[in-house]
Amino acid sequence: MPHFSTQRTEALAGRITSEMQLVAEQEFLPPETVREEVARGRLVIPANKVHLEKGLVSSGIGISCRTKINANLGNSPISGDLGCELAKVHCAIHYGADTVMDLSTGGDLRAIRRRIREACPVSLGSVPLYEAGRMALARGKALADLTEADMMEALRLHVADGVDFVTVHCGVTRQSAAYLAESPRLGGVTSRGGSLMLRWMAAHGRENPLFARFEEVVDLCRERDVTLSLGDALRPGALADAGDRAQVDELYALGALARRAAARGAQVMIEGPGHVPYDQIPAQMRLQKAACGGAPFYVLGPLVTDVAPGWDHVTAAIGGTLAATHGANFLCYVTPAEHLRLPTAEDVHAGVVAMRIAAHAADVANGLPGARDWDDRMSAARRARDWRAMLGLALDPATACRRHAECPPDAADGRCTMCGELCALIND
Amino acid sequence: MPHFSTQRTEALAGRITSEMQLVAEQEFLPPETVREEVARGRLVIPANKVHLEKGLVSSGIGISCRTKINANLGNSPISGDLGCELAKVHCAIHYGADTVMDLSTGGDLRAIRRRIREACPVSLGSVPLYEAGRMALARGKALADLTEADMMEALRLHVADGVDFVTVHCGVTRQSAAYLAESPRLGGVTSRGGSLMLRWMAAHGRENPLFARFEEVVDLCRERDVTLSLGDALRPGALADAGDRAQVDELYALGALARRAAARGAQVMIEGPGHVPYDQIPAQMRLQKAACGGAPFYVLGPLVTDVAPGWDHVTAAIGGTLAATHGANFLCYVTPAEHLRLPTAEDVHAGVVAMRIAAHAADVANGLPGARDWDDRMSAARRARDWRAMLGLALDPATACRRHAECPPDAADGRCTMCGELCALIND
Repeated sequence: MPHFSTQRTEALAGRITSEMQLVAEQEFLPPETVREEVARGRLVIPANKVHLEKGLVSSGIGISCRTKINANLGNSPISGDLGCELAKVHCAIHYGADTVMDLSTGGDLRAIRRRIREACPVSLGSVPLYEAGRMALARGKALADLTEADMMEALRLHVADGVDFVTVHCGVTRQSAAYLAESPRLGGVTSRGGSLMLRWMAAHGRENPLFARFEEVVDLCRERDVTLSLGDALRPGALADAGDRAQVDELYALGALARRAAARGAQVMIEGPGHVPYDQIPAQMRLQKAACGGAPFYVLGPLVTDVAPGWDHVTAAIGGTLAATHGANFLCYVTPAEHLRLPTAEDVHAGVVAMRIAAHAADVANGLPGARDWDDRMSAARRARDWRAMLGLALDPATACRRHAECPPDAADGRCTMCGELCALIND
Repeated sequence: MPHFSTQRTEALAGRITSEMQLVAEQEFLPPETVREEVARGRLVIPANKVHLEKGLVSSGIGISCRTKINANLGNSPISGDLGCELAKVHCAIHYGADTVMDLSTGGDLRAIRRRIREACPVSLGSVPLYEAGRMALARGKALADLTEADMMEALRLHVADGVDFVTVHCGVTRQSAAYLAESPRLGGVTSRGGSLMLRWMAAHGRENPLFARFEEVVDLCRERDVTLSLGDALRPGALADAGDRAQVDELYALGALARRAAARGAQVMIEGPGHVPYDQIPAQMRLQKAACGGAPFYVLGPLVTDVAPGWDHVTAAIGGTLAATHGANFLCYVTPAEHLRLPTAEDVHAGVVAMRIAAHAADVANGLPGARDWDDRMSAARRARDWRAMLGLALDPATACRRHAECPPDAADGRCTMCGELCALIND
């Protein structure tokens, strides 16, 4: 087995890297705690060595850390160009995304990815399988005509380009396909990578290469210490499908793969759903911790209803808060455009803010050191009717200022339009 | 004790009223179940006889019912006029509010209230104490110079004008004031009515008249079967203050008052917080059920963080979903304008939709008969890429259509801008 140094191998060797030191400072944790949790695989620091050299400010995802949020962006063959996607990167960072994923599927994917990485001071994620599919299309073939070599080559490119974490759909297998056939789903398979891989397996009559050649996948990632984000190809895309046998089987498969990756010194996290009824979210989070040895859990929402297109940033924030108080460590935002079209920068703004609210509310609930100090400072400012402090402390000061300025309070006593002389605080 | 017939006295007499029959139809419940729960005081049907005569379509709030949501509106002495408030009524109804509260504190309060009631096909709530305060101001006095007679007269006017439920701040007492003095709060008292009543008690050196003369208050309401919504004058307005002795003492006081009101045949619900850390919400909901004998619980949010002015519709939806899965029956929306200014009609729209998502997600989680059918129909439409069905089934079709139309899918195969040829569903 080739040796590559990763945050995990360093931690196992008892060394505290500068990235671990930074996480310790960001999270108010002793550096030794960070090292220990990285060694145990319950905390990852997605930091590609290429991106680190270019100035990445990395952060930690996992146990004892503040809940992190990711903003998905990227064009499609039908919509979006480089300028538009770069604007989304800036918007996501501005409003507080901890990481960004480039999910582009159209145009010059490599150029877009590199430009996004250059614009991105935080950890960047991607899904190499989309690019592998595009390689087949570029040869004039159908999407499912991509080859095993395309899959490996795409992964190699993403690692070389400085991506910090990659979604790899390694857990979906012929066994999963059999479970899907046994119990057909209302919503089908809504993971793009998962659907593509299932189609590939059916067309070629072969096992998933990212599963069959998993050690090779791990070693490609280890070379630059790219964190594997083991994708849930079979995540439910409808409440009706949550917790079905195919989903749970894949979760346990991902747990087994996580142990194999960890044994090789790689950093690993696990991806999760998706559309899940609110009452099932705690059990799904606990199951992941049991199945995956405490590896960090990266969830998409979850969305607690299927019926709110146009408002799925809210639907996801509701599910994300519950998830993050039951073990989820990393929340992928959902924008108001979800299920309708690609998001604009304005949608990115709404998605990031809604999910930051979820993450912060969960951090307060989880009793993270210092989390509630922010709320207490805001409440003290409210009691004092100190509008400047209130607006400055707002999670999204720009939006708070805009709404506030539309109808400003009395300059003399800070009394606002809500209550006039019935102000409870003036009367207090 | 004067006899007045109410939904509750009818239920206790074994009679199923036409309003109970309607609730049974709305909620897919046997009429006998509705009657029994109204008799037990775990379900209320806010329906003033005056409003019923004018065409009120009443609904039920409480156990076994769909979670209901309320939209607060109303002007202030500084902002808002009748046309503006009527537009908010229409907006609230359009987007699915189950009830509306007129919290106006400026202008001709009685004229505004009557016009709002005329425009309002659903149950209407109000807070008579605000009008009592205005009576003192109209005499050129200070707010706290309102008299006991003002309080009773204001309540009488609201009952006569056809309001279906009234917030009455009966539970805040000299004992509560002592608890507040013992443990000062970070956020103070943020209930307008609560703050006013505390000031009145301090200025007059007397007990809260709405507490001291509670039977009179109940009888005024019973006359037209106005549901008492026992206000939580001491609700926490900051995470730091949640669950303090003053709040919990008032909750138990409200429970005792609820039993006294029920003994007189009145319909009663209990109001609750407010700003509450996410992890404390389940306990707060359970405590209310224990303290108040299962009376319906009407909560404001709760808001799970103090730091998100401009986005408190999201903050409240997160708390509301958790509350409604642990016993809350009735969720008051919060708009993006909260803590900043009075809401506009656009804010009302956002507040109603966000809270409807919370209520529906909770109903699905609670296993309410039929609740998930809607989600399943949406997911089937998605699987079929039937855009017309998806948009028509959306909780907010107008917003979904608008976002969708900005970037429409391919007419031939329903493929949209999100994935192009990588569409998981086409590949499925």
